[in-house]
Amino acid sequence: MSKRLISNISLPQELRTLSIPECEQLCREIRKIIIRTVMKNGGHLSSNLGTVELTLAIHRVFHSPADKIVWDVGHQSYTHKILTGRLDKFSTLRKKDGISGFCRPEESEHDAFISGHSSTAISAAFGIAEGMRLNGDRHHAVAVIGDGAFTGGLAYEGLNNAGKSGDNIIIILNHNDMSISKNVGAFARYLTSIRRNSAYLDAKKQTEKFLGNVPVVGEPITKFIKTSKSALKSVLYHSTMFEDMGFVYLGPIDGHNISELEEALRAAKKLHRPVFVHVNTVKGKGFPPAEENPGEFHAISAGGYNAESFKDMSFSNVFGQKLSRLAENDKNICAVTAAMKYATGLQNFAAEHGERFFDVGIAESHAVTFSAGLAKQGKLPVFAVYSSFLQRSYDQLIHDAAIDGTHIVLGIDRAGFVGEDGETHQGLLDVSMLMTVPNTTIYSPSDYSELEICLERALYHTDGIAAIRYPKGTEDITIGAEDTDSYFLTENGGKGLAVSYGRIIHNLYSAAGEWDVLKLVKIFPIDEEVTDICMKYDDIYFFEEGSGAAAKALLEKLYQKGFRGNFTIKAVEGFVRQASVCECMKEYGLDIDGMCRTLGTERSESCET
Amino acid sequence: MSKRLISNISLPQELRTLSIPECEQLCREIRKIIIRTVMKNGGHLSSNLGTVELTLAIHRVFHSPADKIVWDVGHQSYTHKILTGRLDKFSTLRKKDGISGFCRPEESEHDAFISGHSSTAISAAFGIAEGMRLNGDRHHAVAVIGDGAFTGGLAYEGLNNAGKSGDNIIIILNHNDMSISKNVGAFARYLTSIRRNSAYLDAKKQTEKFLGNVPVVGEPITKFIKTSKSALKSVLYHSTMFEDMGFVYLGPIDGHNISELEEALRAAKKLHRPVFVHVNTVKGKGFPPAEENPGEFHAISAGGYNAESFKDMSFSNVFGQKLSRLAENDKNICAVTAAMKYATGLQNFAAEHGERFFDVGIAESHAVTFSAGLAKQGKLPVFAVYSSFLQRSYDQLIHDAAIDGTHIVLGIDRAGFVGEDGETHQGLLDVSMLMTVPNTTIYSPSDYSELEICLERALYHTDGIAAIRYPKGTEDITIGAEDTDSYFLTENGGKGLAVSYGRIIHNLYSAAGEWDVLKLVKIFPIDEEVTDICMKYDDIYFFEEGSGAAAKALLEKLYQKGFRGNFTIKAVEGFVRQASVCECMKEYGLDIDGMCRTLGTERSESCET
Repeated sequence: MSKRLISNISLPQELRTLSIPECEQLCREIRKIIIRTVMKNGGHLSSNLGTVELTLAIHRVFHSPADKIVWDVGHQSYTHKILTGRLDKFSTLRKKDGISGFCRPEESEHDAFISGHSSTAISAAFGIAEGMRLNGDRHHAVAVIGDGAFTGGLAYEGLNNAGKSGDNIIIILNHNDMSISKNVGAFARYLTSIRRNSAYLDAKKQTEKFLGNVPVVGEPITKFIKTSKSALKSVLYHSTMFEDMGFVYLGPIDGHNISELEEALRAAKKLHRPVFVHVNTVKGKGFPPAEENPGEFHAISAGGYNAESFKDMSFSNVFGQKLSRLAENDKNICAVTAAMKYATGLQNFAAEHGERFFDVGIAESHAVTFSAGLAKQGKLPVFAVYSSFLQRSYDQLIHDAAIDGTHIVLGIDRAGFVGEDGETHQGLLDVSMLMTVPNTTIYSPSDYSELEICLERALYHTDGIAAIRYPKGTEDITIGAEDTDSYFLTENGGKGLAVSYGRIIHNLYSAAGEWDVLKLVKIFPIDEEVTDICMKYDDIYFFEEGSGAAAKALLEKLYQKGFRGNFTIKAVEGFVRQASVCECMKEYGLDIDGMCRTLGTERSESCET
Repeated sequence: MSKRLISNISLPQELRTLSIPECEQLCREIRKIIIRTVMKNGGHLSSNLGTVELTLAIHRVFHSPADKIVWDVGHQSYTHKILTGRLDKFSTLRKKDGISGFCRPEESEHDAFISGHSSTAISAAFGIAEGMRLNGDRHHAVAVIGDGAFTGGLAYEGLNNAGKSGDNIIIILNHNDMSISKNVGAFARYLTSIRRNSAYLDAKKQTEKFLGNVPVVGEPITKFIKTSKSALKSVLYHSTMFEDMGFVYLGPIDGHNISELEEALRAAKKLHRPVFVHVNTVKGKGFPPAEENPGEFHAISAGGYNAESFKDMSFSNVFGQKLSRLAENDKNICAVTAAMKYATGLQNFAAEHGERFFDVGIAESHAVTFSAGLAKQGKLPVFAVYSSFLQRSYDQLIHDAAIDGTHIVLGIDRAGFVGEDGETHQGLLDVSMLMTVPNTTIYSPSDYSELEICLERALYHTDGIAAIRYPKGTEDITIGAEDTDSYFLTENGGKGLAVSYGRIIHNLYSAAGEWDVLKLVKIFPIDEEVTDICMKYDDIYFFEEGSGAAAKALLEKLYQKGFRGNFTIKAVEGFVRQASVCECMKEYGLDIDGMCRTLGTERSESCET
């Protein structure tokens, strides 16, 4: 192989002198880097392989950082990172102190807006575009957003506002028929119908209609079409929802043809008004296993691809399998996911009880209100969702479920440290959030068997909102089902009381020494028995893999009962950067050694988180 | 006048025997009742006058409570309440222990789902419809939703899911070109274009196309069109976004013509699949002042209409006017509202700085992400929003602003008790919510001059998210600007320390007796000086017009510093039902007499909240 072209690229402007064949070579080089790095470090593979040409074309046409590129979710931004001065650091992807797997403005001036959650890019880019307009800045704001993200209402709120403006805002739809699971909903079907039907339209007639309708901006489009035979074939105008909302619609474009992409983007840029560019891409492009199974290659764990991973045991799969078993005997149980069927372990439920399985798209707000509607008909809805994404449902939990006392169950996955995904995905705020929602009960099982018990309690022995939170990955130790108690006290000598919940209880058992250990299974509301136990001690430590809300609530309860002893909280305040879960535990003193230091004990077992 | 027809109607099925002229008479009677009651009790006038015929038609065609009618927001449900057995109690509308101004399932089996916040009805009705399907129940779920609510992303998430189903779900768009302010955004323009353009379509041809496309359901539609000349004129089929999303589209229908409405609804009902019925109504119909100025008649205060109310002094208007003055000298200040221009006092800002004023529609999630985008371009965005609606922005506050440390300002209106609107609108949870968002500062001024000072501090002397919260209505007492301190200590004799913030501090001043009073202006994070003061006391009471989060946070801080005295919290836990603000204050012991009882003091002034 000749010297790599990528080695000469340290800034995006250096891309502009490349020929198209050189660009194609560069794309091949970038794909190799991405595949190699993701296989080693973990990360998003399919989405990044699908956007290599698109990213290159964007950076050849637009001038970042003066033009602002906003990547929705950011799980397709690896090529962008490589092309904007981060090739040297790319091997640190998702590592502690390394570069993020999403966009982080603190990492580079080319990361125009933070990303991690879905469907935010249009709103953010429109804010940037309006700021540019007020500043008299004629540069562009460009949002790159997948079709999956369009199932989220925020994307639509952004469209509704941006479309009516006169701003330099370009929405690039990265259309690959996939969010994380196969995309769902009427909008996905609609997009596919645009793509399918466009081939049958009379391109010439439609173009004339368009030029007639938009005379002042016709020139660049005419030129775009005249100078490009391939574009003329594939870029059609017909009336779409996006035009109804005020955008010029260009597309569909072949997202792996750099010339076609550049022509469309140049035309869009010259319009100086809201433009919607519809780009077709293939997820996993250039890596056959990922092209064939993009869902399974969506997110790869560090250490490489494992096609069987969804079948391995994990808190998610234990949850999903238990729910599926319970649903055999209870026809009212329904399962709801926001585009996370596999990731939340619901694949068995979906296969066995398809009629009662609802993938609502990336629409967490809808998921809760919809679940409350199901409950009104006597159903037992269970919404399985990542901790950090449940933040999207906050008002719906309060307004549509809690006030009316409606019984819904939340399976909160990825609770606690999530590791390499970093700040935007940490599951450290769900307890503090849910404790502000009246009529809510929170369970936090520490192993698989407790998870199963908690799920039954949440379904059948809890009113209102019943939340069960559990971490990413596998259990550390199986202790076995203990019964249906809300807590479990282990007396080790009574030097004091150490309290915790969730997976880190196992660290505490190893670090406790002569400290008695109180494991909470139901962490909120706090039972009288729990406070009664605590009142017997003068010295209490509370270890919390979360922001400290449960600990503070316990302290307040104890105080009102007359407790005046020592009460020390070891929790995780603020946002936590990417690092392995083990590194996070260590940093916040929640590993065995850290707990031993806090308690002044020696570790009693060799097990380690 | 002859005996009122309404007196014979105690259940909706009794409506079905009425002739059309009798229905029209009934509508006139209902309008009189609504106008008389709202003028006395306060409430929503324009929206309720606009939906009298529509409600009557719905209840003649559908069989509530077997069919489930879900009213979005619920501020148009008065006719529904009158027709479903609540005429006798209608005079208690919005009163303590009276009937709610929104839908409350606990109030009647005919209120199928709770309402108060916007854009929830489609998701709720779809959940109900899926529940019905699973139960083998062939009844219908009907969502009635205004065009304003379609600016909220949740409505779109609901559409995206419901459209693809085969359920008996009917979405009735109540199209009056108004949300609370004049409706905004591309979608509103789109709806209007449908209405305008439909007159030019060839009805017959379009109908044939439709019947050809949907042969199995053609019969009821054919009958509907054949039997109705007026319907044939106004009910047209053409390709709309709603059809793209899987619905049969019927409309636009004259929302004040009962025959036309009933024919369309009967046709929709017979289809047994998702149908979108587009109904044109006139807000304020039948009451000329409200027809002419529906915005000003949207919400009426108890005691009758006052066209000047938006010009009166209030916390909202002081906020808006101060912001507008500051914006004269600072070109970076931008104001953002989610369809609440008047209600949040931004009308002057909009008039004077229109270029920097953004009404984003009922889209609180977008408002925050958009504001963060503005901030990225050096702007100073201020989002003015009701406390309870800010719950819609929770994830955006964390993900799009807080993690990146982006500076945005929140003007949180209707903080504290809101009175007659009840549970869904109380502003009692914003402090506990915002305290879970890292990088957030919360100010709680107690009078107008403090509000102005806090606004400047939030804009220019605070990093990250800077929230200022203030109540509905007018200040009780003007004490005058005190300076830029975060707190203010009044020494009255040192019997102990009574702490509070916001408007109820004036009650505390009157109730304090020999208790020293600590007024917090910045309530979070808690300054060292505040804890230092508190440490000097052995007996502390904290009065909070909120869920107690600020008090609990202070206790925890004090505890870690060694405080072991008495610390009593008087706060408002759980949801608070409708009653006047005074009645709520009394119920929760936050009025002067209640505080006196708690502190064991005599009231020192005659002033009363």
